[in-house]
Amino acid sequence: MVDGRSRPIYMDHAATTPVRPEVVEEMLPCFLERFGNPSSIYALAREAQVTMERARGRVAAAIGASTDEIFFTSGGTEADNWAIKGVAAANRKKGDHIVTSAIEHHAVLHPCQALEKQGYRVTYLPVDEFGRVEPASVEEAITEKTVLVSVMAANNEIGTIQPVRAIAGVTHDHGILFHTDAVQAIGAIPIDVDALGIDLLSLSAHKFGGPKGTGALYIRRGTRVKPLMDGGAQERGRRAGTENVPGIVGMGKAIDLAVAEMPQKSAWLAAMRDRLIRGILDSIPDTRLNGHPTERLANNVNMAFRYVEGESILLSLDALGIAGSTGSACTSASLEPSHVLTACGLPPEHAHGSLRLTLGSRNTDEDVDYVLSALPRVIERLREMSPLSPNDNA
Amino acid sequence: MVDGRSRPIYMDHAATTPVRPEVVEEMLPCFLERFGNPSSIYALAREAQVTMERARGRVAAAIGASTDEIFFTSGGTEADNWAIKGVAAANRKKGDHIVTSAIEHHAVLHPCQALEKQGYRVTYLPVDEFGRVEPASVEEAITEKTVLVSVMAANNEIGTIQPVRAIAGVTHDHGILFHTDAVQAIGAIPIDVDALGIDLLSLSAHKFGGPKGTGALYIRRGTRVKPLMDGGAQERGRRAGTENVPGIVGMGKAIDLAVAEMPQKSAWLAAMRDRLIRGILDSIPDTRLNGHPTERLANNVNMAFRYVEGESILLSLDALGIAGSTGSACTSASLEPSHVLTACGLPPEHAHGSLRLTLGSRNTDEDVDYVLSALPRVIERLREMSPLSPNDNA
Ligand SMILES: Cc1ncc(COP(=O)(O)O)c(C=O)c1O
Ligand SMILES: Cc1ncc(COP(=O)(O)O)c(C=O)c1O
Repeated sequence: MVDGRSRPIYMDHAATTPVRPEVVEEMLPCFLERFGNPSSIYALAREAQVTMERARGRVAAAIGASTDEIFFTSGGTEADNWAIKGVAAANRKKGDHIVTSAIEHHAVLHPCQALEKQGYRVTYLPVDEFGRVEPASVEEAITEKTVLVSVMAANNEIGTIQPVRAIAGVTHDHGILFHTDAVQAIGAIPIDVDALGIDLLSLSAHKFGGPKGTGALYIRRGTRVKPLMDGGAQERGRRAGTENVPGIVGMGKAIDLAVAEMPQKSAWLAAMRDRLIRGILDSIPDTRLNGHPTERLANNVNMAFRYVEGESILLSLDALGIAGSTGSACTSASLEPSHVLTACGLPPEHAHGSLRLTLGSRNTDEDVDYVLSALPRVIERLREMSPLSPNDNA
Repeated sequence: MVDGRSRPIYMDHAATTPVRPEVVEEMLPCFLERFGNPSSIYALAREAQVTMERARGRVAAAIGASTDEIFFTSGGTEADNWAIKGVAAANRKKGDHIVTSAIEHHAVLHPCQALEKQGYRVTYLPVDEFGRVEPASVEEAITEKTVLVSVMAANNEIGTIQPVRAIAGVTHDHGILFHTDAVQAIGAIPIDVDALGIDLLSLSAHKFGGPKGTGALYIRRGTRVKPLMDGGAQERGRRAGTENVPGIVGMGKAIDLAVAEMPQKSAWLAAMRDRLIRGILDSIPDTRLNGHPTERLANNVNMAFRYVEGESILLSLDALGIAGSTGSACTSASLEPSHVLTACGLPPEHAHGSLRLTLGSRNTDEDVDYVLSALPRVIERLREMSPLSPNDNA
């Protein structure tokens, strides 16, 4: 690394997080010794089942649910697909209309689009300039045929936190099911499914210090959802497939830690976040903050720099040992402007020059200092080279 | 354990296998250090991507495929669901008929049943007394509307190996796609997708020394399959969701080891298997071998004992430190007779008293001796207590 730094500065925790050592430690015996298939009926299998059910209890406790309402999946994407497609299929006779927002993750938007090809209708609610969904717009969008409202708890690109309780309230007033993609919210903001009025909730372990490839769908007791994965009788007959016991055990440990540490950690992350935002705004002209100024995740910084390309910023930062993102990881290979920033009304020339830095437990004040010292030079140099810049040589 | 044994004897490798220490070792850095999201674009992410692509190459090499034909999934169940539902959806205009066998795993049968509810038609081919599908019966079942033939490479309960090449040949003569569930076959028998004429193939890491919750679907280049998981652009846009990098890396290592060791290991397993079968037949009356006498997996022993219940055998063996199964793990909680044994024409009183013992690398000749010494007494005691027994006191 430049200037003798011993490790890269990782500021892309919204894309994924390192697995915590305590988590790996709990997982290890499930690979090597307690490796039984939980569906079998001998001692080794019962051990696997007991550890798995303990993890289910931890996930349930973290969101105020009962253990029998937690269904393990292979991640946030499967949970979202299952919620959207499963509720749509189970309620086909009742209706064919879904309400969601324009700034959902593709794991929600693309299942909705797949349903549209099958004849369902979907309303993609607009958001305000800060990325907030107005509960009144949910009210307006609901029809006789609406079977599901799905609005994310917090956005993965701009960190905006949605008024979930109000949106769920409007939804329930019409007797409709409410799903929330809480993949970015778990471990970041308090989530209680009863207090917020959530019927289905998606979560993913690798966003809060757990392993990739493990997640869960919370399904409120009595909710009708068709399976996405048919086969064996696992997960009380609702999600087939041999359970990823080590992953599930890791997720249980990670969610326990994440929720316990949340109050302290979010205050500390927010202080770093605010120093980053202020420092960038103060030192770099023609820059604005994307997302909500206050209703935002404690670890999320998302800035628009005019006259530069986000990809170029990333590459320059990477060369300096700083890992960031332009938007969501799953689309960072694409050159389209972010659908989230576009929905917030950002003109393309701003959307194209956006940088997301998302903080995590390993980040330090020195990391923030380093970014604040490196970034202005990066942006200045890129602007000098940019044909879009209104600079003297243009 | 009884008689001072230091560990239970695990003979349920068809349900799941312990993860090999070499595999865990390759996985560990992906949790802690090389934890990047492969879709991101900085050094840490590229490292994750490189290790993942190396694993893809290993999986491809193991079945004679190209790397761009391997798509990672959360296991065998997802691969089967994807193949069946994805081919059906992509070919809806062409036809609505699927041919499969009566003895498939539920991960194939239940997706077929789900499609039937949507108006598709499915033919469940019968098998002979040894569990073999007759290629001529495939020929007869095919109609103008057939879009897929799915027959497993080897059965998970009775270990019967299917004449895949012949079945694929008949299928291709009609220009129809051929899928095989090779979950039990990988690492057990040689599989080459080109030589056998396979268009889609499902595999699952935890069956060959890899971790649970990771699998793959092989899709021959140019084959139209609708996604099961919509969302981000992972897996070249065909399977959304952040990749389970540690699991994938573990699967790559495990398949490499499994395929390299296969020739030696299967000879040695077959010798243990045959000694078990012979020993049981010689020492316990009213007993028969389920499945094919020669065309069977090297590690599979499946015996029917008249006048006893499989569940009772398992519980007695568990008390003696022996882990076995009655059939497939995912249904061992159910009391229905195995659909596989029933399809082979076994009368229910035989099917109910069946025991599956599946061997693996950690098993020894002493394990076989121990089972052979323990089992006759177990069966004898159970028969004495059974109201079905034709014994003197009845
Ligand atoms: C808001 C949101 N939803 C869903 C997902 C998908 O979850 P996973 O990565 O576990 O597939 C992500 C992250 O990728 C996300 O940020
Ligand atoms: C033949 C067969 N197909 C599919 C599966 C399902 O695979 P997984 O356990 O990875 O979901 C299994 C094992 O459970 C199997 O034995």
